[in-house]
Amino acid sequence: MTTPKICPTIAELRAELAPMRARGTRIGLVPTMGALHEGHLSLVRETKKRAGLVAVSIFVNPTQFAPHEDFDRYPRTLEADCARLAGTGCDLVFAPAAGEMYPRGFATAIQMGGPALGLESDFRPHFFGGVAIVVAKLLIAAMPDIAMFGEKDYQQLLVIRCMAADLGLPIEIAGGAIVREADGLALSSRNAYLSSEERQVAGQLNLVLRAAIARLHKGDAIADVEVAGAAALLESGFNSVDYVAVRDAQTLEKISDLARPARILAAAKIGTTRLIDNMAV
Amino acid sequence: MTTPKICPTIAELRAELAPMRARGTRIGLVPTMGALHEGHLSLVRETKKRAGLVAVSIFVNPTQFAPHEDFDRYPRTLEADCARLAGTGCDLVFAPAAGEMYPRGFATAIQMGGPALGLESDFRPHFFGGVAIVVAKLLIAAMPDIAMFGEKDYQQLLVIRCMAADLGLPIEIAGGAIVREADGLALSSRNAYLSSEERQVAGQLNLVLRAAIARLHKGDAIADVEVAGAAALLESGFNSVDYVAVRDAQTLEKISDLARPARILAAAKIGTTRLIDNMAV
Repeated sequence: MTTPKICPTIAELRAELAPMRARGTRIGLVPTMGALHEGHLSLVRETKKRAGLVAVSIFVNPTQFAPHEDFDRYPRTLEADCARLAGTGCDLVFAPAAGEMYPRGFATAIQMGGPALGLESDFRPHFFGGVAIVVAKLLIAAMPDIAMFGEKDYQQLLVIRCMAADLGLPIEIAGGAIVREADGLALSSRNAYLSSEERQVAGQLNLVLRAAIARLHKGDAIADVEVAGAAALLESGFNSVDYVAVRDAQTLEKISDLARPARILAAAKIGTTRLIDNMAV
Repeated sequence: MTTPKICPTIAELRAELAPMRARGTRIGLVPTMGALHEGHLSLVRETKKRAGLVAVSIFVNPTQFAPHEDFDRYPRTLEADCARLAGTGCDLVFAPAAGEMYPRGFATAIQMGGPALGLESDFRPHFFGGVAIVVAKLLIAAMPDIAMFGEKDYQQLLVIRCMAADLGLPIEIAGGAIVREADGLALSSRNAYLSSEERQVAGQLNLVLRAAIARLHKGDAIADVEVAGAAALLESGFNSVDYVAVRDAQTLEKISDLARPARILAAAKIGTTRLIDNMAV
């Protein structure tokens, strides 16, 4: 199994994709920040089922980090990532330098409303604007037929779907199922920050969400379940809870009952590491 | 001469353009807000020299007007516009309803820095964000090889060029020369708002800019020329002056000498009508 070809520039990416597109090949894109784990690889495999060519982008996007966040220490493992992609169906890696994506004089920002409001935005106000601009650029650069994003970042998936629809990008934005460890912890590149004790605590996050869903199905009130979920996380050893929220699964609006499909989402910190997770209710 | 075919939806526009593009036809786009005058028609003719197919979009874009501005009274003359386009080389008119461009749930905004800072932004803070989002959507919808904008809105031209480059849209953003009346007044759809007395005053705007350029060439200081230009406009009968400014022609940054190409730009009001003009120094 050979590792995929690496394109460092948009021009090279387009030069690779144009003849494939002209030949009628369906193109898939899986945008990532690298530090690839089985969650990413499952997105690549799933995309390969739906496209003849799959490109994976690897770019740690500075505009989605706030100054106090972990941009500098975010893992950068391009060589290992490419090795890991061998055999997954990835045909091409787009790995631009920061100056390729944000050259001198770059002056365009995107601000998202709708599904971007609340939840992550309350704690990471820079986040979705940065995600939107970089993903818009990646989508315009590759112009794939389908782009796949993990449901682990569920709000991000809805925001990207909204952005792509609003800009009129003729691209299917698909969500890939969360991949979990044996104890249910959602795979995340940030799990690498956890000490072994913290790792134990982290495994409680998905259990707390499952318990909350069980209470909702039993008929408990949404507000009560949210409060109890946050308390359970603190009880389990999380140092702080940003939110445990039950929302409309399509719009992320607040809901008062389960008349329409709902999603439970949570964000909490262990030490300095912030973890998120979510599940269909 | 038949009037061009009208496409009211992005899907229809794309369906018209796709086979032409597949055949290798170079596609041109001239985005307008309608109320077409000779300035627009010259852009269409110029674009036709550089593209095999020319589409003109006609859409009075609500997001670039502030609540107190003239969105409601902006002239809407689609039938006359289409008649005027006959014989100019326009092959297609894209005339979407507001709901096609901004459907329910639309939640994406663009904010521009760089050339958008200052000048028009100081007086119309909504303006370039609204222009950027609508033009991004038009460019993505038509995906032309070239899009042409009038130099009359010089700052807008630079902002659009910046936005298209930043998003990585593979489209040449071209500027078309200003078309002027016999007395030098730059053609503008808003000239229709002027009474005959106001129309006389309006004709002074270009003369004041020409006089300012002559003074610059004579060696007068930029700051002095700007102040004198604003005074001359008030003297000529303008009711207020938003700015008379000499700037770097590429970046619109403030300059202290004419070492690099410069542009003089002005905005002033006669009654409630706001006029803008600009010239190469």
